Amino acid sequence: MTKSRGRRPGSSGTREAILEAARERFAAHGYDRTRIRDVADDAGVDAALVHYFFKTKDGLFGAAMELPFSPAERLGHAVAQGPDGVGERIVRSLLEVWDEHRDALVGLLHGATAHEGAANSFREFVTREMVGRLALVARDQPDLRANLAASQIVGLILARYVIGLQPLASMTHDEVVALLAPTLQRYLQGDL
Amino acid sequence: MTKSRGRRPGSSGTREAILEAARERFAAHGYDRTRIRDVADDAGVDAALVHYFFKTKDGLFGAAMELPFSPAERLGHAVAQGPDGVGERIVRSLLEVWDEHRDALVGLLHGATAHEGAANSFREFVTREMVGRLALVARDQPDLRANLAASQIVGLILARYVIGLQPLASMTHDEVVALLAPTLQRYLQGDL
Repeated sequence: MTKSRGRRPGSSGTREAILEAARERFAAHGYDRTRIRDVADDAGVDAALVHYFFKTKDGLFGAAMELPFSPAERLGHAVAQGPDGVGERIVRSLLEVWDEHRDALVGLLHGATAHEGAANSFREFVTREMVGRLALVARDQPDLRANLAASQIVGLILARYVIGLQPLASMTHDEVVALLAPTLQRYLQGDL
Repeated sequence: MTKSRGRRPGSSGTREAILEAARERFAAHGYDRTRIRDVADDAGVDAALVHYFFKTKDGLFGAAMELPFSPAERLGHAVAQGPDGVGERIVRSLLEVWDEHRDALVGLLHGATAHEGAANSFREFVTREMVGRLALVARDQPDLRANLAASQIVGLILARYVIGLQPLASMTHDEVVALLAPTLQRYLQGDL
């Protein structure tokens, strides 16, 4: 089925190169205007190889969204260390991930809101991965407390990275942690 | 310039009918797939009349975004009554506006994130209208405090209305106010 005469389909380097090209395309042009053949060109492979790995554009987008560093996993680490200081650990890990991968993540967020299928997978991701993990460290009412924490996390991401509100967007991690951690700590562990 | 033989351009009822049709189109189909002539058909007017009132699709979208009830104005009322209980008033007015106009607002939000020009106008709207008004009631550091409040407001909107997290999405106004108002009150008036 594949007509590619280039790199072998099994190469994980090729798969990563395609994902990298896809992230840049989705970030620069949005979901609808990103074409598989352009991603293939950018990655230096045949379009058939992209189809081989990811089946459809949706599949490619989904794979690109599950970033290599896995934000949900980072959140899991912050949560696994227990209730004390969990608000601070969550804000700090969020800032680390987003400051490092800002362009890719903002691009994916745009894609996720622009495309209906992607919006659904984004919603499912937030609900299952983010809220699910936050609920593990809630004092009680796990769903409600995780909802509240997620609302502030998503709001911080939008304000600092997507809208770019000043001065919030240019403050240091320590400054942002001091401001936001008490909110997360209350939502997850404090009196409501 | 206008070829319309229907209602007169000066009629404010016609203008409102066009805006209403535009809001429904943008909500149902997003910005890119909404065509002026479809909006005109829905409103029962000639497309030239839409161009007469709003010049471009961008102009139409911007006008549709400035909703008749003006969320910024509501926010202004909540803020104008001073620091005591301002967190509660902000959350309550937000819930009233969004519960009443949920579909239109969610649709506009999708359009705002999907289309670059609209994303810019949305960003400018949040920065100028929302943050500007919140800053008026800040104890000190008005820009920073308004940034923080805006982050929680935007996050609440996304969690409750766009993502629809449960149980947050189905709670009563009083319940949501009790949970969120302390955060807004601290950001605007408390110790940081």
